[in-house]
Amino acid sequence: MQTPMILDGKALAKSVEQELQVRVQRIKDKTGRVPVLATIIVGNDPASVTYVRMKGNACNRVGIRPLKIEMPEESTTEDVIRQIQALNEDPDVHGILLQHPVPRHIDEMACFNSIDLAKDVDGVNTNTFGRMSMQMDAFKSATPLGIITLLKHYNIPLEGREAVVIGRSPILGKPVAMMLLNENATVTICHSKTKDLPEVVRRADIVVAAVGKPEFVKADWVKEGCVLVDAGYNPGNIGDIDLKNAIAKCSAYTPVPGGVGPMTISSLIRQTVESAERKFGITNG
Amino acid sequence: MQTPMILDGKALAKSVEQELQVRVQRIKDKTGRVPVLATIIVGNDPASVTYVRMKGNACNRVGIRPLKIEMPEESTTEDVIRQIQALNEDPDVHGILLQHPVPRHIDEMACFNSIDLAKDVDGVNTNTFGRMSMQMDAFKSATPLGIITLLKHYNIPLEGREAVVIGRSPILGKPVAMMLLNENATVTICHSKTKDLPEVVRRADIVVAAVGKPEFVKADWVKEGCVLVDAGYNPGNIGDIDLKNAIAKCSAYTPVPGGVGPMTISSLIRQTVESAERKFGITNG
Repeated sequence: MQTPMILDGKALAKSVEQELQVRVQRIKDKTGRVPVLATIIVGNDPASVTYVRMKGNACNRVGIRPLKIEMPEESTTEDVIRQIQALNEDPDVHGILLQHPVPRHIDEMACFNSIDLAKDVDGVNTNTFGRMSMQMDAFKSATPLGIITLLKHYNIPLEGREAVVIGRSPILGKPVAMMLLNENATVTICHSKTKDLPEVVRRADIVVAAVGKPEFVKADWVKEGCVLVDAGYNPGNIGDIDLKNAIAKCSAYTPVPGGVGPMTISSLIRQTVESAERKFGITNG
Repeated sequence: MQTPMILDGKALAKSVEQELQVRVQRIKDKTGRVPVLATIIVGNDPASVTYVRMKGNACNRVGIRPLKIEMPEESTTEDVIRQIQALNEDPDVHGILLQHPVPRHIDEMACFNSIDLAKDVDGVNTNTFGRMSMQMDAFKSATPLGIITLLKHYNIPLEGREAVVIGRSPILGKPVAMMLLNENATVTICHSKTKDLPEVVRRADIVVAAVGKPEFVKADWVKEGCVLVDAGYNPGNIGDIDLKNAIAKCSAYTPVPGGVGPMTISSLIRQTVESAERKFGITNG
């Protein structure tokens, strides 16, 4: 057995940040302006507060100006949509992020869908998803884009490979399935109603676990030599795959933490820079 | 071996039409108006001409007024979009169909995406696809909706079943995969880059063939007892599945012709009636 390759999202995110610093500097030199990412956080969910802080820090590292908008827990769907519309119209804002999850009484999808496609740098609008699925010009869902970027960086072949996605959420399972499909993988989407999940997972050359249940995917479900992508991030830095036992069988894996997580933030800020470049008519490269 | 069940799309479409006649009559009684389906055909592709005629006939049978708009072969993308926008704004039009395929020089997806979601009764706008995928209120892609309607009518269980979709087109493979997923099937999407397609198809409880190649799916690819959905319609009334030989192995199948084809038209006119009902504030049932 070869030692499995670590798909090091932390290292890749760092190198992407260095590239983005250069691109932000170029925007600054040409326009005197910097990209602005507006981040809306509704209420005080501690995980959301942490994520927003991490994203704000990443913005600062590359020179994007984070614009943090805190809305009270009791905000209505209409309040959030009104705030998003104001940001859509604000010519100084290049990207809009509504931190997930919002309080339960808010219609998150309706809020996502009010984000202007040109500013949907987190890739959450259903039309962003639709356009991305049909390979039209569109931003991409941040975590799926992070996963594909990471796999490509490490030259993991996708074309013709059997990819099994476990989970079908709007921001992860469904878009990562579509992106893998567009990379010419043969894609199977599994979920809570799948019969004999272990048997389905055993077929996979690439497993993407996005269920949100700690160590849900067991080592004996995975095929010898497969690639493990763990998009789970459960309390205590525990992923959705029982990596401790599965690592010995796989050819490559994303660690938790330091795998998919940093790539999500990296995708978000990269798309914010892209949005600003488009706005200012600056070609990257 | 039991005799396989014929999933008779022609018969089901006929009974749906009877129901739609009643609903159109109710619209007429309450408003003095009838639903209007605008159909744009660009150029003279003979298959498109036939389809548009068949759809017009179906409209007439249920009392929908078909509004046929013929545009010359040399129309530009902008010409078509302008025409669609005029129909979007026309309060008397309830549904808009741009007959596929359009001449090659036209950006079909851009045209599709200019159709107002409220009038997208053929389900071709990427945001219609996105909203449908995320189980939000939306019309559905006509052929996939026809397939799901047919399967449900014949009580074919979908939940937990392995569905294999062969083909990934924007109007068939991708949307039918998402609809099957939302019906809780475990869905695999295959395509030209899939390795060992016969082996993947052999796993399927339900096979949806949407490749556009005559008798592409062979009898020895299909599992004993599976359900065969043939969405192909090749010259000479030949489907994408070698049904002649595969029928003996399956538990149910859609014939060609008379299976998926009539259900596509049925879905289109049903959604046109729904659009008019919404417009006039009439609740069905």
